[in-house]
Amino acid sequence: MTPQTDLLITNGIVMTMDPDDRVIQHGAVAVSADTITAVGPATEVARRPARTTIDAAGGIIMPGLVNTHTHAAMSLFRGLADDLPLMDWLNDHIFPAEALLDKHKVHAGTLLACAEMILSGTTCFCDMYLFEEAVARAARAAGLRAVVGEVLYDFPSPNYGTIEKGFDYTRRLIDAWHGDPLITIAVEPHSPYLCAPELLTEAADIAREHGLPLVIHLSETRREVADIRKRYGATPVGHLANLGVLGDNLLACHCVVLDDTDMDLLGQHDVRVSHNPESNMKLASGVSPVADLLERGVCTGLGTDGCSSNNNLDLFTEMDMAAKLHKASRLDPTVMNAATVLRMATIDGARALGLDGITGSIETGKKADIIVVDTRKPHLTPMYHPASHLVYSVGGSDVSATVVNGRVLMKDRRLMHMDLEKIMADASRIAETIRSR
Amino acid sequence: MTPQTDLLITNGIVMTMDPDDRVIQHGAVAVSADTITAVGPATEVARRPARTTIDAAGGIIMPGLVNTHTHAAMSLFRGLADDLPLMDWLNDHIFPAEALLDKHKVHAGTLLACAEMILSGTTCFCDMYLFEEAVARAARAAGLRAVVGEVLYDFPSPNYGTIEKGFDYTRRLIDAWHGDPLITIAVEPHSPYLCAPELLTEAADIAREHGLPLVIHLSETRREVADIRKRYGATPVGHLANLGVLGDNLLACHCVVLDDTDMDLLGQHDVRVSHNPESNMKLASGVSPVADLLERGVCTGLGTDGCSSNNNLDLFTEMDMAAKLHKASRLDPTVMNAATVLRMATIDGARALGLDGITGSIETGKKADIIVVDTRKPHLTPMYHPASHLVYSVGGSDVSATVVNGRVLMKDRRLMHMDLEKIMADASRIAETIRSR
Ligand SMILES: [Zn+2]
Ligand SMILES: [Zn+2]
Repeated sequence: MTPQTDLLITNGIVMTMDPDDRVIQHGAVAVSADTITAVGPATEVARRPARTTIDAAGGIIMPGLVNTHTHAAMSLFRGLADDLPLMDWLNDHIFPAEALLDKHKVHAGTLLACAEMILSGTTCFCDMYLFEEAVARAARAAGLRAVVGEVLYDFPSPNYGTIEKGFDYTRRLIDAWHGDPLITIAVEPHSPYLCAPELLTEAADIAREHGLPLVIHLSETRREVADIRKRYGATPVGHLANLGVLGDNLLACHCVVLDDTDMDLLGQHDVRVSHNPESNMKLASGVSPVADLLERGVCTGLGTDGCSSNNNLDLFTEMDMAAKLHKASRLDPTVMNAATVLRMATIDGARALGLDGITGSIETGKKADIIVVDTRKPHLTPMYHPASHLVYSVGGSDVSATVVNGRVLMKDRRLMHMDLEKIMADASRIAETIRSR
Repeated sequence: MTPQTDLLITNGIVMTMDPDDRVIQHGAVAVSADTITAVGPATEVARRPARTTIDAAGGIIMPGLVNTHTHAAMSLFRGLADDLPLMDWLNDHIFPAEALLDKHKVHAGTLLACAEMILSGTTCFCDMYLFEEAVARAARAAGLRAVVGEVLYDFPSPNYGTIEKGFDYTRRLIDAWHGDPLITIAVEPHSPYLCAPELLTEAADIAREHGLPLVIHLSETRREVADIRKRYGATPVGHLANLGVLGDNLLACHCVVLDDTDMDLLGQHDVRVSHNPESNMKLASGVSPVADLLERGVCTGLGTDGCSSNNNLDLFTEMDMAAKLHKASRLDPTVMNAATVLRMATIDGARALGLDGITGSIETGKKADIIVVDTRKPHLTPMYHPASHLVYSVGGSDVSATVVNGRVLMKDRRLMHMDLEKIMADASRIAETIRSR
């Protein structure tokens, strides 16, 4: 018996991002409860009656985008300070602002970020920050899928205090959110330069014990590489290899400064990488050798990093940047083609988070994390190749519907379950306290 | 006596981009006919009665953006072919598609581009293409300010035939559009590699005789530089210097591959540069040394180039790309700060086109080319610094009103004088003929 169709998304080009890269020209997707039950030609799939129907109006139906690295609550610091040397930016602006944070402010900032992500077609994000219990609650309230983990480092945290309490806090998160349909907890040591070897190995042990992702900033800057070399006689990647921390549950964010041995190690251990081109450019960290990683088969997703170094959470513009940056950097117009970049922002991002059985493509049996792109716009006319439009021409504001876990979170640019006016007013009030510090 | 106020734009932060970089927090702009008559605090300026009022709702009121280099009608080829080696892209896709063009198709493609530009806050563009009479007519019909010039090269043109007729065509354009309030004709030899020395000097003579801009592609690729060195024993810039073509009416587009002598020459002759970062990245031409040009005082505007190498005409994302690219390329987060990039997209772009007495800033006596950015969005909340938002966070779709020469072309995302459905249908029909060639 065919299950009741709760949601039908029809009359669009379906970019499935499935293993066969199937594109259905006049397609439709049927959803029952939280799950995709049919994908195919509209003439077949759209015949069944549905409680709710979304008409894609000839546009593009595709998996929701996956943001593999962000600090959502930093939306509160968007545009607070730009164009500065890294250490001035951190010490004079970001750290003082972060010292004012508490769980209420992190909750408010994360809600703001979730609103932005839903409106720009992101359905899943991986977060690292302080007060992550508040992040998990905000993501659940917003209806977004999220991987969240409390940032762990050697010095005392404004949230949990000493690192022992940081591990306790992480274990409580793991217990409290076990089995949640949207939230996955991760173990998240900040970086090799802010985390002692014992912290890193304990974090890796907890992640392994619970079968959870381990998320870290890795080889982001030349300075970091020099520092780790001096302290441990190895590159950051080599240092993690020596500690036995590399593995297929490790998500290494940034990976800008890598040598061939580093890249081989990442490939051999099936480490997942989050590529954050806009942040790396804005902070002048450099250009990650992503094309070389892809040649080694390293699974690489896209991330925006926090709003203070981007300054937005729009993965469509991030795709555009990723596709272009490496062409200029390698003087080769064929690298990072549209299809590759589109996979990074969808199914490969999901795989990087260990969620490719759940999200990142439109396939029967997967959770319904789906977006619709409205192509009835002059900047999307004419359309020869949907993948080209998605990477090079579409912006987040072209998304006309966002569905997560079968629930319609946005339709016709209106958020269905969030009080956007209140969220923006709360954020602006918090910004006043930051500005007047 | 104060003139009648026809249009009042009020209740916003006015970024004047005037010589003092004046920002008016609660500001307003008054317009009579085509001219700005007052700029100041809303409490003063907004007191006068006005025929039409635009409420910026606390957003940003700023000069319309200036696109210093595009091929508008190439909107018809957006996404036709990407991610290919340059010569395959040109020979197998772009040239065959262009062979199908005529003045009707160029008119249709330019209207499509104008719709996109108006919707993304561009009020003035400089065009180089075939059938430019049709471009001028389309820009006038759309209400946009434009610098247009027929592309000139050694081989026969599908429009005018031999180069002698190309000069005749250009002279006819100059006569026909003399004194037009929106359209300025330019003389536009394609490039040193497609134009013989005699063509270049004659083009320069005509431009000088009529006091018009001379527009050229210059030093776009390594291949071009090698080619010109071989043929003329000089760099492209040096070659133009030898021909006596460098001057303050010359707009040199791209300028990617420059040595120190080239940059000194551009500075000494007050040549204007159009920087096209997205096109240079996508075609893998490389990174223009813009920061070095700015250090030499070279007036540099921003351009999108054609839609087939971008693939959009959004100058907001172009600003973002320009601000970030050079930080990554020079490993310096302080270069190309938001204020600098914002000037490039407005007043410096106007200056590059010789139109800085008319557009590019909000000043009493200038023509009213003004846009409003709606900041009541999660991705623009909170707002600490408007310039940061405009460069790093705003997209073209955040523009809520576009005014050119005192005429409201777009309000609340609706084009006031264009039949968008028909324009998009026409473009899609032309795309069908291109696709089926
Ligand atoms: Zn980060
Ligand atoms: Zn061009």
